[in-house]
Amino acid sequence: MTPRVREILSWYGSESPGVLTNLSRLLNHGALAGTGKFVILPVDQGFEHGPTRSFGPNPAGYDPRYHFELAIEAGCNAFAAPLGLLEAGAREFAGEVPLILKASNHDLTLDEKDPTQAFTASADDAIRLGCVAVGYTIYPASTGRLEFYEKLRSRIEEAKRAGLVVVLWAYPRGSGISKEGETGIDVCAYAAQIASLLGAHIVKVKLPTAHVEFATAKKVIEDMKIPIATVADRVRHVVQSAFAGRRVVIFSGGTFDTTENLLNEVKGIAAGGGFGSIMGRNSFQRPKKEALELLGNVIKIYRGS
Amino acid sequence: MTPRVREILSWYGSESPGVLTNLSRLLNHGALAGTGKFVILPVDQGFEHGPTRSFGPNPAGYDPRYHFELAIEAGCNAFAAPLGLLEAGAREFAGEVPLILKASNHDLTLDEKDPTQAFTASADDAIRLGCVAVGYTIYPASTGRLEFYEKLRSRIEEAKRAGLVVVLWAYPRGSGISKEGETGIDVCAYAAQIASLLGAHIVKVKLPTAHVEFATAKKVIEDMKIPIATVADRVRHVVQSAFAGRRVVIFSGGTFDTTENLLNEVKGIAAGGGFGSIMGRNSFQRPKKEALELLGNVIKIYRGS
Amino acid sequence: MTPRVREILSWYGSESPGVLTNLSRLLNHGALAGTGKFVILPVDQGFEHGPTRSFGPNPAGYDPRYHFELAIEAGCNAFAAPLGLLEAGAREFAGEVPLILKASNHDLTLDEKDPTQAFTASADDAIRLGCVAVGYTIYPASTGRLEFYEKLRSRIEEAKRAGLVVVLWAYPRGSGISKEGETGIDVCAYAAQIASLLGAHIVKVKLPTAHVEFATAKKVIEDMKIPIATVADRVRHVVQSAFAGRRVVIFSGGTFDTTENLLNEVKGIAAGGGFGSIMGRNSFQRPKKEALELLGNVIKIYRGS
Amino acid sequence: MTPRVREILSWYGSESPGVLTNLSRLLNHGALAGTGKFVILPVDQGFEHGPTRSFGPNPAGYDPRYHFELAIEAGCNAFAAPLGLLEAGAREFAGEVPLILKASNHDLTLDEKDPTQAFTASADDAIRLGCVAVGYTIYPASTGRLEFYEKLRSRIEEAKRAGLVVVLWAYPRGSGISKEGETGIDVCAYAAQIASLLGAHIVKVKLPTAHVEFATAKKVIEDMKIPIATVADRVRHVVQSAFAGRRVVIFSGGTFDTTENLLNEVKGIAAGGGFGSIMGRNSFQRPKKEALELLGNVIKIYRGS
Amino acid sequence: MTPRVREILSWYGSESPGVLTNLSRLLNHGALAGTGKFVILPVDQGFEHGPTRSFGPNPAGYDPRYHFELAIEAGCNAFAAPLGLLEAGAREFAGEVPLILKASNHDLTLDEKDPTQAFTASADDAIRLGCVAVGYTIYPASTGRLEFYEKLRSRIEEAKRAGLVVVLWAYPRGSGISKEGETGIDVCAYAAQIASLLGAHIVKVKLPTAHVEFATAKKVIEDMKIPIATVADRVRHVVQSAFAGRRVVIFSGGTFDTTENLLNEVKGIAAGGGFGSIMGRNSFQRPKKEALELLGNVIKIYRGS
Repeated sequence: MTPRVREILSWYGSESPGVLTNLSRLLNHGALAGTGKFVILPVDQGFEHGPTRSFGPNPAGYDPRYHFELAIEAGCNAFAAPLGLLEAGAREFAGEVPLILKASNHDLTLDEKDPTQAFTASADDAIRLGCVAVGYTIYPASTGRLEFYEKLRSRIEEAKRAGLVVVLWAYPRGSGISKEGETGIDVCAYAAQIASLLGAHIVKVKLPTAHVEFATAKKVIEDMKIPIATVADRVRHVVQSAFAGRRVVIFSGGTFDTTENLLNEVKGIAAGGGFGSIMGRNSFQRPKKEALELLGNVIKIYRGS
Repeated sequence: MTPRVREILSWYGSESPGVLTNLSRLLNHGALAGTGKFVILPVDQGFEHGPTRSFGPNPAGYDPRYHFELAIEAGCNAFAAPLGLLEAGAREFAGEVPLILKASNHDLTLDEKDPTQAFTASADDAIRLGCVAVGYTIYPASTGRLEFYEKLRSRIEEAKRAGLVVVLWAYPRGSGISKEGETGIDVCAYAAQIASLLGAHIVKVKLPTAHVEFATAKKVIEDMKIPIATVADRVRHVVQSAFAGRRVVIFSGGTFDTTENLLNEVKGIAAGGGFGSIMGRNSFQRPKKEALELLGNVIKIYRGS
Repeated sequence: MTPRVREILSWYGSESPGVLTNLSRLLNHGALAGTGKFVILPVDQGFEHGPTRSFGPNPAGYDPRYHFELAIEAGCNAFAAPLGLLEAGAREFAGEVPLILKASNHDLTLDEKDPTQAFTASADDAIRLGCVAVGYTIYPASTGRLEFYEKLRSRIEEAKRAGLVVVLWAYPRGSGISKEGETGIDVCAYAAQIASLLGAHIVKVKLPTAHVEFATAKKVIEDMKIPIATVADRVRHVVQSAFAGRRVVIFSGGTFDTTENLLNEVKGIAAGGGFGSIMGRNSFQRPKKEALELLGNVIKIYRGS
Repeated sequence: MTPRVREILSWYGSESPGVLTNLSRLLNHGALAGTGKFVILPVDQGFEHGPTRSFGPNPAGYDPRYHFELAIEAGCNAFAAPLGLLEAGAREFAGEVPLILKASNHDLTLDEKDPTQAFTASADDAIRLGCVAVGYTIYPASTGRLEFYEKLRSRIEEAKRAGLVVVLWAYPRGSGISKEGETGIDVCAYAAQIASLLGAHIVKVKLPTAHVEFATAKKVIEDMKIPIATVADRVRHVVQSAFAGRRVVIFSGGTFDTTENLLNEVKGIAAGGGFGSIMGRNSFQRPKKEALELLGNVIKIYRGS
Repeated sequence: MTPRVREILSWYGSESPGVLTNLSRLLNHGALAGTGKFVILPVDQGFEHGPTRSFGPNPAGYDPRYHFELAIEAGCNAFAAPLGLLEAGAREFAGEVPLILKASNHDLTLDEKDPTQAFTASADDAIRLGCVAVGYTIYPASTGRLEFYEKLRSRIEEAKRAGLVVVLWAYPRGSGISKEGETGIDVCAYAAQIASLLGAHIVKVKLPTAHVEFATAKKVIEDMKIPIATVADRVRHVVQSAFAGRRVVIFSGGTFDTTENLLNEVKGIAAGGGFGSIMGRNSFQRPKKEALELLGNVIKIYRGS
């Protein structure tokens, strides 16, 4: 157990040893073991965007086993996916990579202004499949967010009782904000705060832009001269918004024009004190060799070597 | 136990021996026993379309026992029907054909743009009636789909705990798509993916057309030159979308002009790697002799003899 | 136990001996005992239409005990009423007539296009009051029908576990059909089918007219030349729609101009193979002497003597 | 135990000795003990109308203890109030007056066309506080009435299992009727019937006017020449509508111009066979001395002395 | 135990010794121990207003530990915060300050006319974290208030069974009242009454203005000459509205122009018989030294020294 892992575990003083054990498994697995940094492979795009669009570009990805292998070979801290996908590989790859059961999902067969998520798996499912964590998505700014928080809290309570780590994907979206606002710096910070207050151990947000959505936040940012010009600045503000950095915050990217730009963003995340990256489409939509190379480079940045 | 059945069972590594035992019962029953192929007789049209329209053309079908007999005599792998219909024959035909309790239903006494289903039976009912499986219908693209997925998952979890096989009828329909889109190739593939991710063991979809509904899918299909011209092409894409063929996918037809066309479609399903057919109206709305002949021919195609 | 009663019981092969025992109590009570025919006195009009309108014409009916006495003296198979009404007489008349607890209700203090019912009693209530059966009303064609079916099924499951017979009042009504359609022959047949599929032991429908509501049904009726001209024809089609006559279907009338017309309709029901009548307002809104005479004549028709 | 109390208890033949014991406590307490008549002090106006409006006119009423004392000193059969108010005096006045926990409430911070009630206490609360009864308000004619009846029935079932008497405040209101209709004679009678059918032991309605709301009721009232001209006539019709007088029906007034008019109405209630009065604002909004005098006069009328 | 604390505890005669023990912990902690007065530090603004706006002005507040320390050093009776925030310090500061788990929350990522709250923690959570109390916010005058009261009551019942003190934040808001009405004297009094009736031990309201919202209240205020001109007058009316001062009522301020004005308002609260202040933003948005000075001055006012 490295001092850094011990330090991170110390932030979760209200959790049971069971939860801390599973959290240490995430921290001590793969190429970043012991560093306190994370690279996670998430594959829920089949549910979110459909299989044709998600796996068509690299058809190996239609097979659930491909993603287990990719996560293992790349040295990711964990592999995150919906129930059915984990069920299709959990026995074959038992014990080879920590699993995060993405236990809420949404599909785009109907595009709604105010999206919500369906709970698609239970803590019992996670235990049955040998997972160390469960993950859920919240949509702050949507009309149904409060109702969802309430149901989510029961799920989180159940998960913690089962000794599971809780990961929240915090994606602001809906009637409360503009399209640009979804990645606005104040909105991302707000989302990280809500996720932390709901009891998340690990918070996943989108990489914020310099856009500021709410006038009340804009005033404080200007009055207090909070720096938000660079990726590192913005990552720092979001990390601060998650209990002054005492909750693990990781970042996702999206679609990129060049690999170089992607890696530059990762450097910004690292520089700003972010805890890591969660990379789905950018990993599994390219051939495995290229994906391993990319993930290797990302890991290098987080190792600082 | 044939090697093919063993292979299929191996895809469900996260399920209990109880579930695998029931799945093997489906695979090892009837004229297609051991082949890994399926012909299933479903009779839920009385609920969906009403009795006059469903059974008027062949009045023998008003009697539940007729369908049990048809499924048995034709050598189907299973007979699927709603609660009341199974209750009306389960004792008399106990042990003669594997039963699938169609545990969600919808009626057309009110035609709605965004349909949903009522859960009309429990896992306890299935056990009480000696069923090997339960079946449910999902409507991706409808406004109520997410709420339904959530309730469904609790039902699936309950069913699996009871050792039951889970069959999902995946019928996209509703505000999210056009009428043509309901059988669009990308939509059918998406539906098969969602059903698999929700934990279905067997997925039932409509035979897809070459229509592509979503622009994002269209782009990938064109860019990657995914073939969708023939029935076999499209079946292959849908089967691939169900975990690269590691989930059983079966197809339904609808109303046909000629028996020849119907059989040609079945040939396409077989050529594309589909696992079988589920044939309701085309079976029970013609006289029994003709139905047995038709089902015999379908079985021959799947046996490849 | 007459052969006919044995035969009817044989149709319910999936039910427990407890349920069959209670069903036999209905079949073996009163003036029609052993014949397989039913005359049931239902008194839920106080809830549905209010007391002034229901009991004003014959004020003896304000007292719950009056209806117990009427059902007993007339030799009805059973007396059906809501919770409070049964509570007001169940001890005094314990064991004198089989009781059906009408466990869902609706009132007309607000007239709604798409009505629904409130569940107003439990299986525990039925057991506590010594009832042999519970009854519920479904409204096929209403916007809330599917949600109601789902809740109803849990109630039915609970009732059957308690050994209770389940009676469904199947009254199509709401946005899906026209006013005339509520008693259309195809609609009544559809309602009887749905009730049977939901697991009802006894189905109660309104006497159908020759109106056909749905174009799809009209086509089959014309193509197959299904006779619907007389009361007997239509009763036959509805009975056929309830599992080819293997579920007990009974009929209600409504308000009649003359007693002679009422009795002619009963003759039609008997001729068409209907299992009996359920007569509320036509019984308790006239003086007891006249009511007993009327019910006596109805019973004679069903006895065929 | 007086013959009249024995007689009243005999109407509730389906209830447990536990419920009858609590009902006898109501019947045998205070100045009307043994007469079968009731005067009840209800204080839920703080919730319904707010404290300023309710207690401002007589500020002693801000203190919950005042109302306990008033009910005790006046010789009321019972004191009825919401949870918090009873919690504030139940220990101090334990055993001095039967308590009715008003377990549903509504406030006027938002005035809605179709009001509903929140359940604000449980049967466990009632037992914990030493209550003999629980009370709920229903709003027949409101859009949410059926949903409320359904939830209410579970509460009533729970209450009866706990041996509690059930009192229903039946206040028609909402989209189904006009403002005048809220106290229409047919509507009040209908409300009393619904409350009785839902299993209430004691029904509380507003004093009806000669207005008739529904055409169908008007016709019967005219055809049958049902007298509704005087208070006594109308009370008689409502009492009859509660199982021919075999359920206890009590009446509330409202705001009165003179005490004389109030007492005249009470005389009408007594003459029509009503079981008593429930008097809130008219009691606690005047000085205690005047309130005791008023309640004393009401009690005298019911004692017939 | 001071006489005043004993007196306050005596008002809660229906509560268990477990609840009284926790209430005494609140009354006997910090600089106001034994006086019956309260100064509480609440930090739920991160959820309600977002982190940037809440903690940007004094970035030390991003760290949950800062607020524990502030509450301890200032000698507050208690520290109140949402789940995640308490989880982040409960072990480190165990036993150093009584904790109130703010178990319902709302965020401003979407600004709604009729707000509601999500339940974000359970009584079990409170026990697990060593809290003495749970807190919830109600929004009288909002469309969802009744539904919320009902869910809240189950939570309160659960909390009391766990021996927890219940604090209600009573914030009228929504369609039923004007913006000005949210702090109207009659509305604040009404809110305090509702909270008391729902079973709250401690009620928190906003400091009322002289605005009167409802015509029915205005009439009584004028007729009875109820004084509402000064802060002390208005506090007195609100305290009276909480069971004639037999429920603890504390007040919050909001944003102030000068510290002097803030302290003047506190003097008004003390003069009117208010039980104390709950001060969030005014405490943690200024440097710790200034915050301690301010809280020290507030405490002095309540100590009357």
